[in-house]
Amino acid sequence: MFKVGIIGGTGYTGMELMRLLAHHGEAEVVEVTSRSECGQLVSDLFPSLRQVSGLRFSHPDQGNLKGCDLVFSAAPNGIAMSHARELVDAGVRLVDLSADFRLKDIGEWEKWYGLKHQCPELVAEAVYGLPEVYREDIRTAGIVANPGCYPTAVQLGFLPLLKTGLVETGSLVADAKSGVSGAGRKAVLGTAFSELSDSFKAYAASGHRHLPEILQGLREMGGGTVELVFIPHLLPMIRGIHATLYARLTEAASATPLDEIQSLYERHYRDERFVDVLPTGSHPDTRNVRGSNVCRLALHRPPGSRTIVVLAVEDNLVKGAAGQAVQNMNLMLGLDEGCGLSGIALVP
Amino acid sequence: MFKVGIIGGTGYTGMELMRLLAHHGEAEVVEVTSRSECGQLVSDLFPSLRQVSGLRFSHPDQGNLKGCDLVFSAAPNGIAMSHARELVDAGVRLVDLSADFRLKDIGEWEKWYGLKHQCPELVAEAVYGLPEVYREDIRTAGIVANPGCYPTAVQLGFLPLLKTGLVETGSLVADAKSGVSGAGRKAVLGTAFSELSDSFKAYAASGHRHLPEILQGLREMGGGTVELVFIPHLLPMIRGIHATLYARLTEAASATPLDEIQSLYERHYRDERFVDVLPTGSHPDTRNVRGSNVCRLALHRPPGSRTIVVLAVEDNLVKGAAGQAVQNMNLMLGLDEGCGLSGIALVP
Amino acid sequence: MFKVGIIGGTGYTGMELMRLLAHHGEAEVVEVTSRSECGQLVSDLFPSLRQVSGLRFSHPDQGNLKGCDLVFSAAPNGIAMSHARELVDAGVRLVDLSADFRLKDIGEWEKWYGLKHQCPELVAEAVYGLPEVYREDIRTAGIVANPGCYPTAVQLGFLPLLKTGLVETGSLVADAKSGVSGAGRKAVLGTAFSELSDSFKAYAASGHRHLPEILQGLREMGGGTVELVFIPHLLPMIRGIHATLYARLTEAASATPLDEIQSLYERHYRDERFVDVLPTGSHPDTRNVRGSNVCRLALHRPPGSRTIVVLAVEDNLVKGAAGQAVQNMNLMLGLDEGCGLSGIALVP
Amino acid sequence: MFKVGIIGGTGYTGMELMRLLAHHGEAEVVEVTSRSECGQLVSDLFPSLRQVSGLRFSHPDQGNLKGCDLVFSAAPNGIAMSHARELVDAGVRLVDLSADFRLKDIGEWEKWYGLKHQCPELVAEAVYGLPEVYREDIRTAGIVANPGCYPTAVQLGFLPLLKTGLVETGSLVADAKSGVSGAGRKAVLGTAFSELSDSFKAYAASGHRHLPEILQGLREMGGGTVELVFIPHLLPMIRGIHATLYARLTEAASATPLDEIQSLYERHYRDERFVDVLPTGSHPDTRNVRGSNVCRLALHRPPGSRTIVVLAVEDNLVKGAAGQAVQNMNLMLGLDEGCGLSGIALVP
Repeated sequence: MFKVGIIGGTGYTGMELMRLLAHHGEAEVVEVTSRSECGQLVSDLFPSLRQVSGLRFSHPDQGNLKGCDLVFSAAPNGIAMSHARELVDAGVRLVDLSADFRLKDIGEWEKWYGLKHQCPELVAEAVYGLPEVYREDIRTAGIVANPGCYPTAVQLGFLPLLKTGLVETGSLVADAKSGVSGAGRKAVLGTAFSELSDSFKAYAASGHRHLPEILQGLREMGGGTVELVFIPHLLPMIRGIHATLYARLTEAASATPLDEIQSLYERHYRDERFVDVLPTGSHPDTRNVRGSNVCRLALHRPPGSRTIVVLAVEDNLVKGAAGQAVQNMNLMLGLDEGCGLSGIALVP
Repeated sequence: MFKVGIIGGTGYTGMELMRLLAHHGEAEVVEVTSRSECGQLVSDLFPSLRQVSGLRFSHPDQGNLKGCDLVFSAAPNGIAMSHARELVDAGVRLVDLSADFRLKDIGEWEKWYGLKHQCPELVAEAVYGLPEVYREDIRTAGIVANPGCYPTAVQLGFLPLLKTGLVETGSLVADAKSGVSGAGRKAVLGTAFSELSDSFKAYAASGHRHLPEILQGLREMGGGTVELVFIPHLLPMIRGIHATLYARLTEAASATPLDEIQSLYERHYRDERFVDVLPTGSHPDTRNVRGSNVCRLALHRPPGSRTIVVLAVEDNLVKGAAGQAVQNMNLMLGLDEGCGLSGIALVP
Repeated sequence: MFKVGIIGGTGYTGMELMRLLAHHGEAEVVEVTSRSECGQLVSDLFPSLRQVSGLRFSHPDQGNLKGCDLVFSAAPNGIAMSHARELVDAGVRLVDLSADFRLKDIGEWEKWYGLKHQCPELVAEAVYGLPEVYREDIRTAGIVANPGCYPTAVQLGFLPLLKTGLVETGSLVADAKSGVSGAGRKAVLGTAFSELSDSFKAYAASGHRHLPEILQGLREMGGGTVELVFIPHLLPMIRGIHATLYARLTEAASATPLDEIQSLYERHYRDERFVDVLPTGSHPDTRNVRGSNVCRLALHRPPGSRTIVVLAVEDNLVKGAAGQAVQNMNLMLGLDEGCGLSGIALVP
Repeated sequence: MFKVGIIGGTGYTGMELMRLLAHHGEAEVVEVTSRSECGQLVSDLFPSLRQVSGLRFSHPDQGNLKGCDLVFSAAPNGIAMSHARELVDAGVRLVDLSADFRLKDIGEWEKWYGLKHQCPELVAEAVYGLPEVYREDIRTAGIVANPGCYPTAVQLGFLPLLKTGLVETGSLVADAKSGVSGAGRKAVLGTAFSELSDSFKAYAASGHRHLPEILQGLREMGGGTVELVFIPHLLPMIRGIHATLYARLTEAASATPLDEIQSLYERHYRDERFVDVLPTGSHPDTRNVRGSNVCRLALHRPPGSRTIVVLAVEDNLVKGAAGQAVQNMNLMLGLDEGCGLSGIALVP
């Protein structure tokens, strides 16, 4: 049984890691740290874990993270980078759910996150944890930068299309909608029930931190210039991301039938158990992936238009965070990639 | 006091008309018809109208619609066209909240609505009821085709931009999201609480009935070819539409500063009391227009992009239906355009 | 036109006062204070008031509250009592929406609210602002203690029954459920969307601050000992209170038919325009009073039982707070009691 | 591997059975019947089961239910009783999730359900499937009548208290609130999103079908006369039941400290893995049992009162239906009682 630790276990992604790992079978959470809650029973803070976990939060400086085989960091941005060097040197592998190791361009990172990076040399080594793209590198990585929730859906949705050269890469649009849990477990007026329920709005329309992360990925996929307009919105619901992706066929490719693109997607993801391409014309909903690690895709070509529309859904806390982190852990530890991830969506 | 009637008063738009007209002051609902509920007190079906309305539903064939100055049809598609000729001949003016008189191209209408049109000659006479565009024609119209909820938000959002020639009209995108009340008051599994709550999805991505209506309007505004991709989505909330509109600046116009476009919008809507242009960079939410007749717009230009993003919100039952219908009625009857429409959004 | 001021206008009740007073016609808000937002446009904080109010928040020490005819305090507990003496001395009348003047027993107040009361002598003078009980005293009061949201529903629901002596007053139960807006406009983890949505729980089951307020009222009504178990619950919705009230018929009265009690309620509230007694066996829902000042009541006698069940609903921000405050203001200023309160519930 | 079948698999409880059994390990669903959907892939109707189940719905008359070891009936009331005789004669055991076998008094059953019972003799044999009370009888039962969702929470909540004789059994109150999924998967206006969302109401306050079922259980537990007022309410959320239970201590027992009653509950449920007694003064919420088979209880004694308040929560589709059915199946097949039921609540 592998021993794993969690840095910053009081947020939603930390909690979700504990849910997924509780019945994993090959890995066991032995350490969960929290500055604010240290000493407290995890199940006092999260009653869903009563009868499941007897762990107490430990102080990050006192817990035995170095005794773990692998550590997840579920802390806010800026924390993982302060632990990384020590863990790496102790031979402990790290899956970071924050943004600390996602952007290769340190200057860009510092601009968007407003912090000075503490270990740029480790960023260079870190592997971007999107298994459907970087699987082999992840197996041997010391540090895995677990992707953001939006970037997972947007990249998986555009990937096969970008590889073909069928679409204009200079005018991509990602209109993305997220459940409120993506904003984390915080006391903030903006995410109060009375402020958000029964309402809807865009946010950060003039620039969101996930844009450079998505662009970095799409550029690697498409092998060239990519221009993307990315507008995130906040949904009055807890879990789920829905990305509506628009890509214009090039003039040369404008006669390509949708069926051909559908086949392309099905072939591309044929061996991926966590990406599910629906029949052409489907409309995936977020509830059918709620709690599961699946990303669902569906393709459309609206009438009278040269645009391909990809609908992509996932649970932001699972495939968009903790589930993908466990998938990465499984790869890193040489386990079956789907271990602990067979949970079925909770519907209705 | 003008006398008004409502055909098909058991749906959400009929109900909303009664709410708005209850304290209108210049017009009074004297007749509400319903086949299924005739004889019943309106306030038995809609307890919010207890102490407000003592009316009973009358049978459409027996009620005295012809004694009214103006009649709203809030019935499903296909009903208004069966009443129109008789009303027009009796000198009664008609505001139709269904789609019966919206499309000038009868063939197109019959294709999308699956019905044979009963009075094409009246379609030619009917005026499209978007006061911000067709105000003068509305004043004297016999029949006003009240716009659909999506078309109102999308057209008001694109209008000033299309008039300028600054954007490419061949690649417009409207990613639109609607509250569930837009689907009407019906017993349908698809809009059951347990099927929709805490979830989100696109629908009709391969073609929605509102597309030809929007295109007809945009083409008239833009004076030429317009290609639009329109993807509607269903929000887990009752009221509200949010349209996120994408338009690419032409190469020639790509250096136009956002401020200039902002000024353009402010000037265009300066005298419109039901269109409110927010400061650049704002994110209007649907709750701040819930129950009010206002459509709010905000402009963005995402970093590193040639695309202008317009955020447009409205209450689908007010500015997107009954409120706009009352606004049209006011114009038709020579009343103050805002009469009965001063209601402030119910927040939180 | 009467001049009114609002102390602490950044919460939900302050906002709701401004919505209700915007089209009042006889009273006008001329001053809204806020320490945190002073100088800012009210409509910047509350976009629903754009195009409606041009006011700016003023600092409580600098605003001209003493120039008002009447002042509402919508600030948290403990603030109104610090302004009261000065206002009273200046001849300004005060409607306090907080708890500062609600409990006649100062010791009890200090125990529940954890503060030292600053003007016990004014508590003695203050009138409890439940117009259906204390209408005449309210007309001439200098200070009106506007009731809490739960106390309004519970007292109006029990009132006619307690006056009759038909029920055992030693075993009353009030199982009450409130929308989240009752917790105020605050950044608190406990009322975050992701913590409350799609969930339900009781709170303060071992003692809630509104219990002594309700008991004080019921004892005055029932003329004797009253024992009440009061359990509040938090609903995953914004507005609305539903109180389910249980009272056991005395043995002597156990054969009283429900119709007789129904008549009693109808007679009792016959002249009250803001209390609406539904036909026996009805189930009022909160949405049909959302945004309106009406409290709806319905009576049941479950089969095989000696218990009368009263269902009471209201909008916690209107009849449970700001609407009732305006009703009190109307009485105090000699205006029509319903002035500004004709708003119809927003349904759906 | 045991073979199990499901009659009427298109509702929420059928779907939930398939979710729970998908990874059960000792039992496998081999047959799912549906008249309306026969021939269709289960995963086409329920996309959450894509990649999980390859089953197709079979026609109830053609499927091989008699080849199963055990059959669940998840069909509406009145269906299981038409299959029961044939299954019992074929040696197939039956867990019925409908009400067909719950009431021992056939006359009472026929009154509440409006049907003629087809096999009263099997009702006499059937065992009520509340394992915490009837575990030993369930092991050997041919037919298990799986309890209703409300009855499970109410009985588990009152049980230890009734066994003691400390409370007056003539004035019990159960104020119960249920998520909408309890109403089933149906196209009904009353459970439409726009009718229920953001609202709350009681229903069936003058008599609900679950009352006689609860009374039958409580009377057996308490060994005598029990009078219960039971008022169900509808919550604007999908899953979850919260029962707030009120029981008055007898005069003799009125001095019993709450701690003593707490100990009593803890002792009573010490060996029950699906009943979790929280520390005194806790407020269980429904989300922390969402998707899990746990019923949580907490005790309170409000100040100045002789009443014990029990708060009980469960997921109506799991411990209140499909989970409890699997628990019963495990007992009947000699498996570990918790097999397939270790799922942790999905929070947030």
